[in-house]
Amino acid sequence: MAAPVPNSQQEMRRRNLARVLHAVSEGGPASRAAVAARIGLTRAAVSTLVDELLRAELLVELGPGRPGGVGRPGSALALTDRGPCGVGAEIGVDRLAVCAVDLRGEVRARASAPFGNRGGDPAAAAARLGELVERVTAEVAPEGLRPAGLAVAVPGLIARGTATVVRAPNLGWRGVDLVPLLPAGLPLTVDNEANFGALAELWLGTADAPRDFIHVSAEIGIGGAVVLDGELLRGARGFAGELGHVPVRPEGPRCACGGRGCLEQYAGEEAVLRAAGLPYGDDTGAHVALLADRAAAGDTATRRALRDAGTALGIALAGAVNLLDPRAVVLGGALARLGPWLLPSLERELADRTAAPDAIPELIVSAAGDKGPLLGAAHSVVRAVLDDPLAYGPGQGPAGLRSAAAPV
Amino acid sequence: MAAPVPNSQQEMRRRNLARVLHAVSEGGPASRAAVAARIGLTRAAVSTLVDELLRAELLVELGPGRPGGVGRPGSALALTDRGPCGVGAEIGVDRLAVCAVDLRGEVRARASAPFGNRGGDPAAAAARLGELVERVTAEVAPEGLRPAGLAVAVPGLIARGTATVVRAPNLGWRGVDLVPLLPAGLPLTVDNEANFGALAELWLGTADAPRDFIHVSAEIGIGGAVVLDGELLRGARGFAGELGHVPVRPEGPRCACGGRGCLEQYAGEEAVLRAAGLPYGDDTGAHVALLADRAAAGDTATRRALRDAGTALGIALAGAVNLLDPRAVVLGGALARLGPWLLPSLERELADRTAAPDAIPELIVSAAGDKGPLLGAAHSVVRAVLDDPLAYGPGQGPAGLRSAAAPV
Repeated sequence: MAAPVPNSQQEMRRRNLARVLHAVSEGGPASRAAVAARIGLTRAAVSTLVDELLRAELLVELGPGRPGGVGRPGSALALTDRGPCGVGAEIGVDRLAVCAVDLRGEVRARASAPFGNRGGDPAAAAARLGELVERVTAEVAPEGLRPAGLAVAVPGLIARGTATVVRAPNLGWRGVDLVPLLPAGLPLTVDNEANFGALAELWLGTADAPRDFIHVSAEIGIGGAVVLDGELLRGARGFAGELGHVPVRPEGPRCACGGRGCLEQYAGEEAVLRAAGLPYGDDTGAHVALLADRAAAGDTATRRALRDAGTALGIALAGAVNLLDPRAVVLGGALARLGPWLLPSLERELADRTAAPDAIPELIVSAAGDKGPLLGAAHSVVRAVLDDPLAYGPGQGPAGLRSAAAPV
Repeated sequence: MAAPVPNSQQEMRRRNLARVLHAVSEGGPASRAAVAARIGLTRAAVSTLVDELLRAELLVELGPGRPGGVGRPGSALALTDRGPCGVGAEIGVDRLAVCAVDLRGEVRARASAPFGNRGGDPAAAAARLGELVERVTAEVAPEGLRPAGLAVAVPGLIARGTATVVRAPNLGWRGVDLVPLLPAGLPLTVDNEANFGALAELWLGTADAPRDFIHVSAEIGIGGAVVLDGELLRGARGFAGELGHVPVRPEGPRCACGGRGCLEQYAGEEAVLRAAGLPYGDDTGAHVALLADRAAAGDTATRRALRDAGTALGIALAGAVNLLDPRAVVLGGALARLGPWLLPSLERELADRTAAPDAIPELIVSAAGDKGPLLGAAHSVVRAVLDDPLAYGPGQGPAGLRSAAAPV
């Protein structure tokens, strides 16, 4: 069926305000005329929209004009570096982290703390995370920034449209609803860390970065996410992207998911350390560095373990590529750092097993790296503001904005 | 970025005309008021659109009013059973088939002919197909139907947005552009048969049929297609859905695609016949019936072969399910007929290997069966008419339509 058309004037106005903000966000500061050219509306229509966004203090004018004042033709418009900001958070196996990102995409504050989540109590982790959120928001408040929402990245399966962690094997969590555990009063989003990592890649990548890709990162588990035509694939229940549980050898070792021979059994951190004859210590942050050091020093067992992990990754990715035909495969997290020893075998499997000729996707190393999930979370809030500016005007703003709907 | 908004009045009118036609197509004959309620436009706006579609002879009025005449309030509107029709065609390994479907979705004529395409000459196949297209269009012409386009289903990889068969192993075709080989003068679409099969499932299924599914059919090869949120996944190059080349056992038998141990090596017709100790004869149409007869008669080798094929299907589908989290898996073609012997092992693998709890997709037997690709092809043309009615008015229609753009 043809795409739906907005039915009301209000909805049309909301969309056009969002188009103006996105045009400035993606293309950088620009005059009214340049914004009009970018989005294909008339100069007059854009001027009206811009005036509204200036009054709402979401746009500001650069240059000689009074900042935030009545616009002069030709002066450049920019997103504000005050007002609503996105707060992102990450619950890792042994660490919690929070950051605040303004509408321009700048990280304005960060906080993190070691925290042993493995088998730990979700309430304790959430309470500590709440303290970090408070610290970060207090740090940016004097700069005129107020949180527009909180987005939390979790290494687990999140039921679509909820804040419930259905299963997070490496945390030992099952059926944990984060809503009652996290600070009230802020719109809350919870998503899989690999999903946020892939979104960071999409949003923070260069303009010519692919918009169809499989994102794979290996830390303690294997994180996977699929982006199709610039949209994250969520799946019917929110569980899409579980590349770590694609069968590689159907009669292989038993996996925590109930299957056998899943990718995680060959390319997860624990499996690679075991294959390399190295201990799985408590300091999980040191594992990747240990593997990289050993491999760089020429240790045969480590190199073989990484080569075999690359083979397993290549087999699983080949299946995914044959199903999805993506433009690229983006390697994040530890995969980027271990690339020299993983990539040759990975590339060979991908080349041998891709069914369509000339359809072998480009292999790209992640730009955001292991910061991806945290940045993606914070940016998801920023994008929610840009998508629906009517909902995020200042409390003391003009009547037209005060009457807008509350944030969803 | 927020969805684009149509910029011109003309584009808005085109979309609204399409919405009216789709509302009548999907919901059945209805009054102007009912159509207005279905699509959320005002009664007055719908009346104007309907009048235009009546003049264009795409809608007709049922009931006591003069058919095609000036509308009376309350009389039911239906799609015409004359005017543009979709012509679908299928190039099989040993058979060619063509059908014509009117805007109401009724098959109005069919023709088919045995034709040995395996390793055959694409030009000869296309010439014979052209004769069948001519026969079918001649048969429906006296009923006032004229072809609006030709869509051809091919068991192979088609480069996205082209009519070029990049590779069709079972036909022995490689790099065949069908444009110069097929009848000129008709808008031509060429797509993979599994894609058209999946679209038929989507379009011809019941209203509560899932809109997120993996479609898998086994005939000579394994056909796969992915539908996400009611849209066929095409992939960056048009090669998505190649479930048949997902690795099942990475060290397994060599496959024509260059890989090893692909699903097709375990669940393709040739592999199953070999495992059952049956000959791979020239009459490929008889293979499935032979397997079904043997299995029904209790033949141990046949039952084991089918059970093993089900296991391989389950392993490959489990990987796909973990990646895509679809609502359902739809089994088409031979899989439906061999279900009793394939399904138990397939379901077991799927249940054991689906990573997320409670995320095992529903297994559904195809409604369209092995008619899916042909019907999907014909319906794709019908939907192109409904999507862009301005392009398909009668040559002798009113001026407003005569000036419309030519079909794409």
